[in-house]
Amino acid sequence: MKASQLGRGAEFDLIRELLREEPDVLPEGVVLGPGDDAAVVAGGSIVLSCDLSVEGVHFRREWMSVEEIGYRAVAGAVSDLAAMAARPVGILVSLALPAAEAATLVPCLRSGIAEACRLVDAAVLGGDLSRSPGGVLIDVTAVGEATTPVLRSGARPGDVLWVTGYLGGSGAAVRAWEAGEEPAAGARRAFVRPVPRTGEARWLAERVTLHALIDLSDGLAGDAAHLAAASGVQIVLEGAAVPVHRAATPELALRGGEDYELCFAAPAGAVDPLREEFVARFGVPLTPVGRVREGKASLLLASADGEDAALSSGGFDHFEEGEHEA
Amino acid sequence: MKASQLGRGAEFDLIRELLREEPDVLPEGVVLGPGDDAAVVAGGSIVLSCDLSVEGVHFRREWMSVEEIGYRAVAGAVSDLAAMAARPVGILVSLALPAAEAATLVPCLRSGIAEACRLVDAAVLGGDLSRSPGGVLIDVTAVGEATTPVLRSGARPGDVLWVTGYLGGSGAAVRAWEAGEEPAAGARRAFVRPVPRTGEARWLAERVTLHALIDLSDGLAGDAAHLAAASGVQIVLEGAAVPVHRAATPELALRGGEDYELCFAAPAGAVDPLREEFVARFGVPLTPVGRVREGKASLLLASADGEDAALSSGGFDHFEEGEHEA
Repeated sequence: MKASQLGRGAEFDLIRELLREEPDVLPEGVVLGPGDDAAVVAGGSIVLSCDLSVEGVHFRREWMSVEEIGYRAVAGAVSDLAAMAARPVGILVSLALPAAEAATLVPCLRSGIAEACRLVDAAVLGGDLSRSPGGVLIDVTAVGEATTPVLRSGARPGDVLWVTGYLGGSGAAVRAWEAGEEPAAGARRAFVRPVPRTGEARWLAERVTLHALIDLSDGLAGDAAHLAAASGVQIVLEGAAVPVHRAATPELALRGGEDYELCFAAPAGAVDPLREEFVARFGVPLTPVGRVREGKASLLLASADGEDAALSSGGFDHFEEGEHEA
Repeated sequence: MKASQLGRGAEFDLIRELLREEPDVLPEGVVLGPGDDAAVVAGGSIVLSCDLSVEGVHFRREWMSVEEIGYRAVAGAVSDLAAMAARPVGILVSLALPAAEAATLVPCLRSGIAEACRLVDAAVLGGDLSRSPGGVLIDVTAVGEATTPVLRSGARPGDVLWVTGYLGGSGAAVRAWEAGEEPAAGARRAFVRPVPRTGEARWLAERVTLHALIDLSDGLAGDAAHLAAASGVQIVLEGAAVPVHRAATPELALRGGEDYELCFAAPAGAVDPLREEFVARFGVPLTPVGRVREGKASLLLASADGEDAALSSGGFDHFEEGEHEA
């Protein structure tokens, strides 16, 4: 848990550098390149994203079972499809495993991978497998289909910002483990069994014009900042409105990361009539947490005296030295 | 370089186990699941494959520059698109890098990745980046488009088996490095700068009915065996006809692996009229190396006395202990 500048962690700088050579003109059929939650190809219908899970960086084996490691790797990747309101089609899974353990790890990983796939109606489309000189590494490419993918970049002044679920549970689990404690059951579950909100995102997108959508992987403060930056708007969060997981603190709800809930901007008044049906259908709260206004792209925290304060994003930086900082 | 049973290396068994849970009915839009060179989705037009490159398993940093590591990772993944006669669209790249070196590695990797992308007209569509507790790891998902993907499974009795290029150069480079020697320049080039035959595959597929197609990653003996198994046919290789790289031996041409040339079955007489134009256009030889006949799926080596001998596939097994065995 480290505070850092808005989107300025070493991870982001490196990715930007890596991706900077993108051609001005995208190849035939490519509608959206890197920069959003997923790329869009096939003239706009196929959505693709990849997500890497590395032992000692994203998880530790003392924290969770091998099944849970497999489940979580897939759920995290598929969450990027939810972030585009795409229907999951399938995944490709690359595994690097310590040679001596491969035979025992594969059946357990497979079981967790299959569980996550069943949950979202995705198929295992392919994969690769290698010996790992280090620990366990799983890279999942999620493939989805969307008639109209929802990007990060469409939030408009006057929109309301919403989130699904309760935030900070996953971060609370990591904080407990790092303090040598056993996390509360709900917090542990939030970390090891995140539910990708693909069904929720599609249900909403079919009923409301979602202007911008992202999934919460870096923490609400980080991801709302991404949304503000991509849309070129100011977002003002109402700190008191943020739905805090019962095992978490308000700070963890803002900065804990890896909640894999949805965060979206929609026209004022558009979502309220659906709220009751959404909660009844999905058993997940739907909460307005802020508003979008004109101004230099930034994220602010609302203050009672009207002097809204700038909020640093405090995302997860995989290149910070030392232990897991989610 | 280890001889093993036809498709029976630990790698293959583990992948099969991992993929065995594939549903009987593929999800909507998925035309082909795992098992071929790539999966096919979007009702048949989008082709997807992933390929993992791990330091100490697939390459060593003493062997090649960081640019070459990036180039080779992409070329190897894109070769799976060639194996389906697909047009490259783009790639997703996940990188796990030692934290202390990430800042120096990324620009060099990016340069090699970009070079391979330019060569085949592909864009970097997305990626992920993480700290690696071990060495360098690159996972590339290649995305292509094909109106009629060519599978491994269509070879028919009477077909002729063809290969592009010269075989064994890549294996000769690895053998030299492992003996503590500097490989011949041509062998080194075959290993570090393989050229995915995407243009060649499409040119051929537009002019001939290719019954079955695969790219040579496990060695001709291994990959022709995959093709025989998928098609349910016998393939008889003419050992003397195999085009051996000038730095390689006939044994390396059969078992060296990672040549990334094409191997395909086409009706007898269909390819011969195109051979001269192919060589003139691509500067790459096109050689008939065997024939397809009825019988229990297997790979044989032709013998002058008519007693064709069974050939073990001898692929690369990433779970063999010890050093690189390509």
